[in-house]
Amino acid sequence: MAKRALISVSNKEGIVEFAKELVALGYEILSTGGTKKLLQENDVPVTGVDEVTKFPEILDGRVKTLNPMIHGGLLGKFDDPSHQAQMKEHGIEPIEIVCVNLYPFVETISKPDVTYEEAIENIDIGGPTMLRAAAKNHKYVTVIVDSNDYQTVLDELKANGATSFETRKKLAAKVFRHTASYDAYISNYLTEEQFPETLTLTYELKQTLRYGENPHQKAAFYKKRLGSDFSLAYATQLHGKELSYNNIQDGNAALQIVKEFKEPAAVAVKHMNPCGVGVGSTIEEAFDKAYEADPVSIFGGIVALNREVDAATAEKLSKIFLEIIIAPSFTEEALEILTKKKNIRLLTIDFSQQKKDPFKVVSVEGGLLVQDDDTYGFEDADIKVVTDREPTEEEWEALKLGWKVVKHVKSNAIVVNNKEMTLGIGAGQMNRVGAARIALEQAGEKAKGAVLASDAFFPMPDTVEEAIKAGITAIIQPGGSIRDQDSIDAANKAGIAMVFTGVRHFKH
Amino acid sequence: MAKRALISVSNKEGIVEFAKELVALGYEILSTGGTKKLLQENDVPVTGVDEVTKFPEILDGRVKTLNPMIHGGLLGKFDDPSHQAQMKEHGIEPIEIVCVNLYPFVETISKPDVTYEEAIENIDIGGPTMLRAAAKNHKYVTVIVDSNDYQTVLDELKANGATSFETRKKLAAKVFRHTASYDAYISNYLTEEQFPETLTLTYELKQTLRYGENPHQKAAFYKKRLGSDFSLAYATQLHGKELSYNNIQDGNAALQIVKEFKEPAAVAVKHMNPCGVGVGSTIEEAFDKAYEADPVSIFGGIVALNREVDAATAEKLSKIFLEIIIAPSFTEEALEILTKKKNIRLLTIDFSQQKKDPFKVVSVEGGLLVQDDDTYGFEDADIKVVTDREPTEEEWEALKLGWKVVKHVKSNAIVVNNKEMTLGIGAGQMNRVGAARIALEQAGEKAKGAVLASDAFFPMPDTVEEAIKAGITAIIQPGGSIRDQDSIDAANKAGIAMVFTGVRHFKH
Repeated sequence: MAKRALISVSNKEGIVEFAKELVALGYEILSTGGTKKLLQENDVPVTGVDEVTKFPEILDGRVKTLNPMIHGGLLGKFDDPSHQAQMKEHGIEPIEIVCVNLYPFVETISKPDVTYEEAIENIDIGGPTMLRAAAKNHKYVTVIVDSNDYQTVLDELKANGATSFETRKKLAAKVFRHTASYDAYISNYLTEEQFPETLTLTYELKQTLRYGENPHQKAAFYKKRLGSDFSLAYATQLHGKELSYNNIQDGNAALQIVKEFKEPAAVAVKHMNPCGVGVGSTIEEAFDKAYEADPVSIFGGIVALNREVDAATAEKLSKIFLEIIIAPSFTEEALEILTKKKNIRLLTIDFSQQKKDPFKVVSVEGGLLVQDDDTYGFEDADIKVVTDREPTEEEWEALKLGWKVVKHVKSNAIVVNNKEMTLGIGAGQMNRVGAARIALEQAGEKAKGAVLASDAFFPMPDTVEEAIKAGITAIIQPGGSIRDQDSIDAANKAGIAMVFTGVRHFKH
Repeated sequence: MAKRALISVSNKEGIVEFAKELVALGYEILSTGGTKKLLQENDVPVTGVDEVTKFPEILDGRVKTLNPMIHGGLLGKFDDPSHQAQMKEHGIEPIEIVCVNLYPFVETISKPDVTYEEAIENIDIGGPTMLRAAAKNHKYVTVIVDSNDYQTVLDELKANGATSFETRKKLAAKVFRHTASYDAYISNYLTEEQFPETLTLTYELKQTLRYGENPHQKAAFYKKRLGSDFSLAYATQLHGKELSYNNIQDGNAALQIVKEFKEPAAVAVKHMNPCGVGVGSTIEEAFDKAYEADPVSIFGGIVALNREVDAATAEKLSKIFLEIIIAPSFTEEALEILTKKKNIRLLTIDFSQQKKDPFKVVSVEGGLLVQDDDTYGFEDADIKVVTDREPTEEEWEALKLGWKVVKHVKSNAIVVNNKEMTLGIGAGQMNRVGAARIALEQAGEKAKGAVLASDAFFPMPDTVEEAIKAGITAIIQPGGSIRDQDSIDAANKAGIAMVFTGVRHFKH
């Protein structure tokens, strides 16, 4: 009696060749619907599933293989005498190979004009059932969900007359990965609650990484389907080595900052904090400012720019050691200049495709924290001047820049800046005045006439006092401390301006 | 003709009452196996699935409901004339309600002595198929996977004679969340690769949070099944308000640090960085040191301790404003003292259950970074003394403490400490010497005779020079810079000791 292979695929790539090889190896092919038709057109002998089930395809194909004559063949233990006897009694023959892939649910819901009915119709029922049944029974059954595995299976069949248990187990694991992911997409499509009782997230491997944050940690980068293209997961790398784990973290941080700006802007990042941010009327000017902001820390850093990189900017970029440059595009000249440097990574990203991720996640031991992005911008804030003096026009511009940057600096965060660039950044401190001292010290003489932004309120007036001492003339902060008035009094006494945003920007 | 409800549950809680109510509402109950038996024993009239399929249960129950007589009833469109005609032709009657839950796969693999065969046998095939078929057809069919939904369905049936589309859609979404999660567990159990082509992660809601890192961000805390109990997701809260998003991040950071120590240890954390770490022969002594390390930053912080909190320690803890105290346990007296403070959160955690999470994840825009934990300890390191002078015994103890702490400080990180406590912590800096200056400045006079730990190598000798100036007598760092010799020369000139670990501890 011939061994049997059941083939029913939505993605038909390579299926005719695979079926022909199986036939040559003595297999009887069972099939249905479009796959059956395609195989027959290509002269592959096929037995219809309905001939096996003695039951027609019904309900527009919704019920074809959901039949004991099929599932008995997939689920019976081939070496269990009682199973064998029952199968014989009911005329059920074993199915040794199952090759199935599923209705394209994700592709369907990706279409811009997809209807709810279309989406629902593309939820495969029979396919996952055959895959799961065969995968459960992988002790006996070979199950293939990925056309990349056709050759492995054929090779083993040709060499040994059968697949190895190890291969069957691997293929079964792949099936459950596939069905888990398939149902995760369906559940996300149907779920309306933001935080349902069960959260299942699914990603596709973009690349395994050489290592993680440190060389002794293994790591990988996964991408989201249906996510934002404005992402390192969907960037085009024009030049240089593979991105590292830390590159991806830093590059992502740089992108989040540079997207705050509509005007030409450049951002340098080190250890996930900005070390220099500059804006200008051209991208070259913006980069000049970002560089000037901290010409030391930019060394070995990452630069993101929100305009095409031209030759003049490329010349300047090429003079410093940078890990990565990210931009919407590079002119040919700029590319020629930068690609002379072997080790620099050049990436382009589609700035026009900034979809919002529904949430971001981070592991804690034994669990996962899930939250919305902090998308609250300066424009959304309910800005209030709380001092006697209003900021000048120039100070307003500077306050706006400082507020956009401080949002992306790790807390406690203080930024000292003017309307063109950051001058000092105090990041990641366990107390606020400590962050202010770092920022003010870095700014030095340049703090005179500059502004200061704080990601959270001042619990005491000490930060304002330090700022005044250093020559700061305007401050932006959320407000909301029970001791706000002390800070306001200190500002008024010195004649500087202070504005409250009402919104905090902690980031860790 | 009576409407039909198909019931087949593994978790039988509340099922008899539910079935009785359905019968009272005029439903015919279809069932099979253990559920059928239970219902019959409780005098619920039941039609066997085999009476509907005219096909017996075979293969030890592996094939029962995988039959067109069932699935035609679940998948047919009740208002489609062609579907109705086909159903009539084949004697298929609609099934209006499906109530199914699955073989307990997760519970099975949680058992310490589970065999592979047992695990495989607990992969449900028929159940998910019925659930998915009914959920796909939710325009017509009501599907229940969670016993908590029995009452909602009964209420709607009683009030309106039918469930609403909205309810059916919600229930369908829940089904796909359930099957996605179910298959995620199976795939994780079967998958041997660390980073497979598709990664599907599944979590259960522990609590929605009042907000995220900031009040304008929505957030939730999910827990992992089969994860480590040494986790805030599995902590017991004895007192105080709900944990906030930032509490969970900080508490998790504190736990990771305190678990580095076998001796009594106390850790204070602010903004995910330690601000004070102390060890001692008692937990009180350890806390004294952690407090003394930085009596300013601890204000509003989180303290984790690795021994039972006694009355004496509780007295001291109660004198400062703390968000959370975490410990393996509290004495009754300690609890009495601390629970007088309304706003403090007291948590106990099982320190004996420190399973290793296989990896940690963090979102970047459009993707996910996945990596191993950094579990490399001092004991694993290949420590080399690189200076003329060896550290003294006391310095060795201090270097060990510094190295354990610096691993958990955000990069660039420098810790100044003695053998009992941290004295200065420079965190999250964009350049290394800046981090050293922060740590040394905080240590002040206490830096004299103390040691310094760096999470990564020194690209230049400047950090060593600053350390010497401040009176540091021994340094621990990974080594590996092309300019290591410059740092070694500087150390030798000053007669201080320096050791290399060979391992970096970046953390962001």
